[in-house]
Amino acid sequence: MSLPRHFAEWQSRVDARMAELLPSEDLPAPALSQSMAYSALAPGKRVRPLLCMASALAVGGDPDAALDGACSLEFLHVFSLIHDDLPAIDNDDLRRGRPTNHKVYGEGMAILAGDALFALALKVALTSHAEPAIAHHAGLCLAECAEVLVRGEVLDVLSEGENPDLALVQEIHAMKTGALLGCACEMGGRLGGANEAQAASLRAYGQHLGLAFQIADDVLNETGNEEQLGKASGSDRARGKQTYVAVMGVDGARAAAEREISAALAALDDMPGETDTLRTFARYVIDRQH
Amino acid sequence: MSLPRHFAEWQSRVDARMAELLPSEDLPAPALSQSMAYSALAPGKRVRPLLCMASALAVGGDPDAALDGACSLEFLHVFSLIHDDLPAIDNDDLRRGRPTNHKVYGEGMAILAGDALFALALKVALTSHAEPAIAHHAGLCLAECAEVLVRGEVLDVLSEGENPDLALVQEIHAMKTGALLGCACEMGGRLGGANEAQAASLRAYGQHLGLAFQIADDVLNETGNEEQLGKASGSDRARGKQTYVAVMGVDGARAAAEREISAALAALDDMPGETDTLRTFARYVIDRQH
Repeated sequence: MSLPRHFAEWQSRVDARMAELLPSEDLPAPALSQSMAYSALAPGKRVRPLLCMASALAVGGDPDAALDGACSLEFLHVFSLIHDDLPAIDNDDLRRGRPTNHKVYGEGMAILAGDALFALALKVALTSHAEPAIAHHAGLCLAECAEVLVRGEVLDVLSEGENPDLALVQEIHAMKTGALLGCACEMGGRLGGANEAQAASLRAYGQHLGLAFQIADDVLNETGNEEQLGKASGSDRARGKQTYVAVMGVDGARAAAEREISAALAALDDMPGETDTLRTFARYVIDRQH
Repeated sequence: MSLPRHFAEWQSRVDARMAELLPSEDLPAPALSQSMAYSALAPGKRVRPLLCMASALAVGGDPDAALDGACSLEFLHVFSLIHDDLPAIDNDDLRRGRPTNHKVYGEGMAILAGDALFALALKVALTSHAEPAIAHHAGLCLAECAEVLVRGEVLDVLSEGENPDLALVQEIHAMKTGALLGCACEMGGRLGGANEAQAASLRAYGQHLGLAFQIADDVLNETGNEEQLGKASGSDRARGKQTYVAVMGVDGARAAAEREISAALAALDDMPGETDTLRTFARYVIDRQH
């Protein structure tokens, strides 16, 4: 199972637009712009942007209408990666196959580059649509999501080394991944013209997909190799992290991911537009090898 | 010169509303809520909230209409204080007379509490008014300001130890303080019903006041004692920071602050409402002893 064929082209459009939206190196303190671009433009799957654009399509809208919203989601995601990787939090040296931001630019700059990407994400979301009410919704969705994301990271860190617990791991994954994927799909839908019911269905699709995505990540962290992962394999277990694999083993985790994917697909039943892209993406999430 | 008499009552309203808006300790990871509240509710002058409410009054509006906007500004300010104080950035042990956030909760939690306060600030600004276009403006103003604030901090850190330079110190102060005070006044004005011209004048007032405020801070850092400052005096000079005092001495800095205050007051000439509060505040900023 591979990604929808037009995704490579969408990824290029997202990367090009992110490069345009990132701050210039002609501004004061150009090192900040460089540090932001280093992490934001690192090769990545652009899962959140693609979901956002595909959700616009699912309500019969133009994916390009969701392009700036798509970029805002990736900027927010990258902010959270930079901060989570810091020595005082997860202390990771590698991200997307490259040294983490603080390894290249130092801790102080990494903290501030994360902050600046967070601010940029909000600014871009709030200017993603000409209609203030829709742009307002995009920004609010992102701000609420960021709050949940940060609390999920704290919960994750504080729960390391505790006995694996299904309710806890579900909560962490819903906060760290489900919320932002739900936001991505709802935002894309709204930027593409969704009504309230469609927006709610797309959010549900994204939340279920987010859980499946994170469960699949847990499985990959256990079964993948370093080349596939861009970081050391088995690192979650070594750290005593709360994961689906720790709670129910690899097979149990795979079955749980399948259930989430079924729920995600069911949420697409009444969409007025093209949902093949979102459906293909859902299958890809649990079949992917990296 | 003291603060306007109703400021003590406004400060109480701001503190009470901030306490309501802060996340509950019943949420997962209650330590995050505690860490956020520790810094957000620490005793402070609440300069940005008071300016916001006084600006609503200056356009003939109700200061309470700007109360949530006022809180969002303080949350954003506290986020930037927590991150700036971190060991990897300014490495300060004391803030507002108390141990800094990371001294109490550890670096990882301080980083994430700052992030969560940033998210909360945006959420509160985006829900500060029933009219989406006005709430949208409040959020966008805050997001743009946060970008400038963070870049100002990077510039400040990178310029430490360099030869004192007037253009550079003006730029740093405009970015680190002028932008947020300008945003505070514009936001308060808009929440109080300002038209575009009034909003622009209030922004100008706030930007000039912000410069004066920071110049006065430079002077206080040099001439105040630790009890007045809540931190060690002379710390800017010891660190080789870019300050007005370093560029033009204490007397030159005081004169520069006077000029900024005159410019700030001139911007209030055509306001339709009560501007005594903003005028009194402007005098206070350069006469204060802490």
